[in-house]
Amino acid sequence: MHFISGQRLDDGVLEREFTLGEISGILWTPESVSAPVPLILNGHPGGLRKMYPRLAARARDCAVEGYAAATIELPGAGDRPRFAAVDEARADLQRALKAGEPVTDDIVDRLVLPLVEKAVPEWRATLDALLALPGIGGPVGFSGGVIAIGTRLAVVEPRVEAAVLFAGSYVPRGIIEEARQVTIPLHVLLQWDDEGNDRQQALDLFDAFGSKEKTLHANMGGHTGVPRFEGEAASRFFARHLK
Amino acid sequence: MHFISGQRLDDGVLEREFTLGEISGILWTPESVSAPVPLILNGHPGGLRKMYPRLAARARDCAVEGYAAATIELPGAGDRPRFAAVDEARADLQRALKAGEPVTDDIVDRLVLPLVEKAVPEWRATLDALLALPGIGGPVGFSGGVIAIGTRLAVVEPRVEAAVLFAGSYVPRGIIEEARQVTIPLHVLLQWDDEGNDRQQALDLFDAFGSKEKTLHANMGGHTGVPRFEGEAASRFFARHLK
Repeated sequence: MHFISGQRLDDGVLEREFTLGEISGILWTPESVSAPVPLILNGHPGGLRKMYPRLAARARDCAVEGYAAATIELPGAGDRPRFAAVDEARADLQRALKAGEPVTDDIVDRLVLPLVEKAVPEWRATLDALLALPGIGGPVGFSGGVIAIGTRLAVVEPRVEAAVLFAGSYVPRGIIEEARQVTIPLHVLLQWDDEGNDRQQALDLFDAFGSKEKTLHANMGGHTGVPRFEGEAASRFFARHLK
Repeated sequence: MHFISGQRLDDGVLEREFTLGEISGILWTPESVSAPVPLILNGHPGGLRKMYPRLAARARDCAVEGYAAATIELPGAGDRPRFAAVDEARADLQRALKAGEPVTDDIVDRLVLPLVEKAVPEWRATLDALLALPGIGGPVGFSGGVIAIGTRLAVVEPRVEAAVLFAGSYVPRGIIEEARQVTIPLHVLLQWDDEGNDRQQALDLFDAFGSKEKTLHANMGGHTGVPRFEGEAASRFFARHLK
């Protein structure tokens, strides 16, 4: 892991950009800590530059509360080499939505599964590197989307002990099946009137999770309209499970 | 409204039983207040004596936070005259569940609508009397079940300004239609694995509510297993809307 830039923000949080092989990301850490801190991995739909304001706000809140927070660019997004097959599936999705046709399982699989296959090992490699840094000790939480990535990560990565999942994107049927193996505490956010999402798929996924503690919070406001009070609710969830 | 007993509890909360015509209920008020307090009406599935420990715990928490809290016995429950038609519908429901047969709309209507018809005017009469007491000023919230009663109350009673609704009982189709007229902020609790409830009906009801701010919190733990942290979440919801 190479740090390529670093700045101390006005709330005392240290923000550092890093690269790890072909992975690029950002790490936020609290000002001064006496013991290694827990870590929250912040997922997003891809496009780190575009997402930066929202991601940085979430991450700085985490750091102020005593967590390290990190995010990485999604495969095929931002400055990374395009994922031709995924781009093609996205075009098929747009065509289907525009024509008012159903979004088939085939489109969803081609759109999401390649991302899951590539992003999950990248998150795990990032986790190896982050936990090797002085001052970051775990436990580890995952927060955000893509929900299929968060789900697979919760299945295969035992170091992730709790997750806040944003149900804001399509979910392959196979991932809904995998979800039965998830046993960590989950806090799932669903925008009930999300125009670009399949609500029933999100409910099926929530139903499938094998976790004994799983909570669904559904709100109005469209895809990007998660109410401000949900930030506090997510923070209380992590405080219960990571502190 | 006649107070028939009163006691000061060890947290300083004043608990008084009252009657109002054929209605009987309990009022909890904070120890000492300088201004009239907001009021939370606590709904329940009927059987005030049996429900007392849980209701009193909820109400005392409210009172400690600066609300008055009140509950009344449900028509046909506790010491009140039985509701023969409702008892018959309940027997039909049990038979259907035992036989693994579908719970028909007819059974749900006969089970729930008579309660709604009788309980809602009783809540409104109670509200008149409570708001006439010195020290209780509003705004007013409703909290709990029966969700069909809370829904109708939110439609017809403009003094109820926010509601925490427990989606733990069957909902007549007609009430789901009425729900489109509800516009107050709602916080709906659903036990995802509630064995004696129809989850899809609860989701249809949540979908139908016309409120711009509506939040669904779904959890595991069966009908009576609402997690402790949901008490705090409901309390934060009321603090946002009644204070």
